[in-house]
Amino acid sequence: MTETPQERLLKWLSDAYAMEKEAETMLSAQAKRIEHYPELRQRIEQHVDETRGQAEAVQGCIERLGGSLPAVKGAAASFMASVHAMGNAMMDDEVIKGSLLSYAFEHLEISVYRTLILAAQEAGDETTRAVCERILTQEQAMADWLATHLEPTVRQFIARKGSEDGTAKR
Amino acid sequence: MTETPQERLLKWLSDAYAMEKEAETMLSAQAKRIEHYPELRQRIEQHVDETRGQAEAVQGCIERLGGSLPAVKGAAASFMASVHAMGNAMMDDEVIKGSLLSYAFEHLEISVYRTLILAAQEAGDETTRAVCERILTQEQAMADWLATHLEPTVRQFIARKGSEDGTAKR
Repeated sequence: MTETPQERLLKWLSDAYAMEKEAETMLSAQAKRIEHYPELRQRIEQHVDETRGQAEAVQGCIERLGGSLPAVKGAAASFMASVHAMGNAMMDDEVIKGSLLSYAFEHLEISVYRTLILAAQEAGDETTRAVCERILTQEQAMADWLATHLEPTVRQFIARKGSEDGTAKR
Repeated sequence: MTETPQERLLKWLSDAYAMEKEAETMLSAQAKRIEHYPELRQRIEQHVDETRGQAEAVQGCIERLGGSLPAVKGAAASFMASVHAMGNAMMDDEVIKGSLLSYAFEHLEISVYRTLILAAQEAGDETTRAVCERILTQEQAMADWLATHLEPTVRQFIARKGSEDGTAKR
């Protein structure tokens, strides 16, 4: 069984759609739990909005190519989200673990969109390529923000752990 | 309960040790399954060796600080590794999903070592800082390699899917 570049592109767009829906769930849960790091919370909330827009943009590409939306693996996604949430809630450094995982997840998304841009080129689909370039720019900006803000978050966390006010964790 | 920067550094070193042991398991399993992308397989195998060295270096820091090695969450690590392996084995684009997840995982490690470098500074532990700087360089090199080699892997994958020889998947 051979597969055309157009068929491959559609499969990967479906994967990306499911990823964005999962990201929306995880990021929303993460933002809601942050209390004492307002700048971080605000940036994640902004990215939740961006993520919704990205899912819609990817959905537009899937529909234009005549595909149907994947059943988002609700079971798996919710399971992973709750495992993360539970794991993080029990950790005494939830805000740090969350920042590290978000940074890794942004790089998953960056490489997914770089892959989609290549697949769109191979399929000769200029519209999808342009959509994925726009999303890639947003993912890169979020990754850069997280990279830049890791240092102040870590230093604040360590300083707060040295006090007794219990505000370090989240 | 307050916590000193030294105590925090030791906790994060334990987390990093567990992460490296888990990485070793996952990367070894991933490399073994790759058949038709020899350059990728070789680079991952090289990184398995680096990862073993990193676990030992982190172990050295933990012991020097008077800590004990964490019981690596063998259960969780093996479970995650087998879920990944099963999931990947069922996918028809295992080599691509593996590359994307590895790239994300390298960025998790990059941010873990950036965090440890800051914690070592706060704790005034120059030896640990130097060890983590060295490991960070290796993780960054692996991430850069994966970023550079994504394009040829994706183009090869799509070309192979257009033939009938069944070599695309891994």
